[in-house]
Amino acid sequence: MNCDLRSALTEKIDNLNKPKGSLGRLEELALQIGLIQGTLSPTLNHPCHLLLGADHGIEREGVSVSPREVTWQQMVNFTQGGGGVNMFCRQHGFCLQLVDVGVDHDLTDHPTIMNKKVRMHGSGNILYEPAMTEEETDLCLTIGRQLVDDCYREGCNIISIGEMGIGNTSPSSLWMSLLLDIPLQQCVGAGAGLNNEGILHKLDILEKCQTRFLTAHPQWTPLLVLQELGGLEMATAVGAMLRAAELHMVVLVDGFIMSACALMASRLSPQFMPCAIFCHVGDEKGHRLMLQGMGVRPLLSLGLKLGEGTGALCAYPIVESAVRMLNEMNNFHDAKITKYF
Amino acid sequence: MNCDLRSALTEKIDNLNKPKGSLGRLEELALQIGLIQGTLSPTLNHPCHLLLGADHGIEREGVSVSPREVTWQQMVNFTQGGGGVNMFCRQHGFCLQLVDVGVDHDLTDHPTIMNKKVRMHGSGNILYEPAMTEEETDLCLTIGRQLVDDCYREGCNIISIGEMGIGNTSPSSLWMSLLLDIPLQQCVGAGAGLNNEGILHKLDILEKCQTRFLTAHPQWTPLLVLQELGGLEMATAVGAMLRAAELHMVVLVDGFIMSACALMASRLSPQFMPCAIFCHVGDEKGHRLMLQGMGVRPLLSLGLKLGEGTGALCAYPIVESAVRMLNEMNNFHDAKITKYF
Repeated sequence: MNCDLRSALTEKIDNLNKPKGSLGRLEELALQIGLIQGTLSPTLNHPCHLLLGADHGIEREGVSVSPREVTWQQMVNFTQGGGGVNMFCRQHGFCLQLVDVGVDHDLTDHPTIMNKKVRMHGSGNILYEPAMTEEETDLCLTIGRQLVDDCYREGCNIISIGEMGIGNTSPSSLWMSLLLDIPLQQCVGAGAGLNNEGILHKLDILEKCQTRFLTAHPQWTPLLVLQELGGLEMATAVGAMLRAAELHMVVLVDGFIMSACALMASRLSPQFMPCAIFCHVGDEKGHRLMLQGMGVRPLLSLGLKLGEGTGALCAYPIVESAVRMLNEMNNFHDAKITKYF
Repeated sequence: MNCDLRSALTEKIDNLNKPKGSLGRLEELALQIGLIQGTLSPTLNHPCHLLLGADHGIEREGVSVSPREVTWQQMVNFTQGGGGVNMFCRQHGFCLQLVDVGVDHDLTDHPTIMNKKVRMHGSGNILYEPAMTEEETDLCLTIGRQLVDDCYREGCNIISIGEMGIGNTSPSSLWMSLLLDIPLQQCVGAGAGLNNEGILHKLDILEKCQTRFLTAHPQWTPLLVLQELGGLEMATAVGAMLRAAELHMVVLVDGFIMSACALMASRLSPQFMPCAIFCHVGDEKGHRLMLQGMGVRPLLSLGLKLGEGTGALCAYPIVESAVRMLNEMNNFHDAKITKYF
């Protein structure tokens, strides 16, 4: 059945009035989305963007150029419409859902931020302790799943996910190193703007985190990596990704941190990767390497390193073009054009 | 004045609530468009797409995989809304203007194709004769200028240009070779799908064209290259680009053929390059080399090779994001956020 659909989609794409393959990546996207939705005429409906916020204990170790309070300040800024993520959501018609799963600040005065705090003050400092307990991990995954269920019930079939969490490139580097078996040195970069000295300090701290984890858990599993070296917003994102794949939704994957979450999701379920579109590769050292390790090619490379899911949102019109191509272009027969070759 | 504006734009961009530089290419675009329009708050109004069609005498030499009649067939197809260019124009709200400047077919039955034929049967076969006379060249340039004037009068300040002309990668390769002083071998590629044998044949033919031209005109000028080795739609595109720059409009440059026209425009007026945004680099051999030779970096690389201006249209939302960034994002002060660094 899937094999038949693949053939039928390929035939449909090849017979559109253009030289075969001449719409490049759009043709690959059209095939992928047709397969996700199980149809020759896919549609993109009610796109939603989940913006998940949480703080990170590891931020206390000076691994980030920005102070912790920027997490809550930006979450509040997003409620006022003035952030990068707001601008992209307006432009591309995404419904933006702000969710606090562990920001180290009381945000209950802001009703447009959904209060789903799993911990009051962010994750544990992974230099000394697990990021989360098993129960907290389960709760994050469940919240992520529920957020996607809510979108799905409103008619959404394409979702993008962003994060706001000062310090979250650190757990991302650790996940990448362990899950892809790549030395940590190649997985650690400047984040939002560390200098060389800062990067070396970050690497030193993360090597200690990794050693602590590997000593405690010589027989680790991906789920244990998520729990012990996670971030609350990252665990929530993984839950959202897994649920979206179960529901045959398209998942737009943002930059370094969300790619790490996608990598984790791919290790927890074989269903995930076929639903994922990798949208942007930034300049963060290791991101390109991570995507190579996953065998995927990103759509864009525009030097974005803002986070918030902006790289995913920025690529949405290209995904939309792919779907329009399938639905709106004539084929050679209808257009009465001599088939090229 | 321009220097003051540059400083003011840079300061505005740096103070938006994001780590400095974290919106990458969008920040460069915002600066460029602010400078083109001479304002800290640029806008994009009434975007127009000129689709210029013409045939090429050189097509008779078997340099293209597609037969000549595909030019007029596709022009007709575009009137019905079923082409790649139609789909992108609808998606991004571009006003599409179809213009016949020398298609080898009577298209007067199609009122939505503007009849501006400069020659009835396309350009001369540049293997034996000039593509155009001096008068025809002037006429093409004037038509291009008038088309842009018409758009401008309707409120347009951003224009993209596409082409439909079987065989037009051949003159593009010749322009590139001569204007950038790059051996023809590095400028000739597969076009819409030639095999290796076909590429060698094309190279052989184009070397003969180049030799004929250089023998007749050892002291050539760019304008003479345009006239002798041109295409009618390409000369029209050059006229449009030059006029758009005079009117301080943003020009979205498509793939290999339109990049060759932009290269020509840059040699005819120093005003042009600051207004040009190079939107896409395809797989056509030499396109990357041409852009390097011009010192520009394209926004997208999605393997498109359809022509019609689809690569330019595909990049429009990114350009729009850059403008929205300038106009819609809060700065650190308004957003009450600790400035990162």
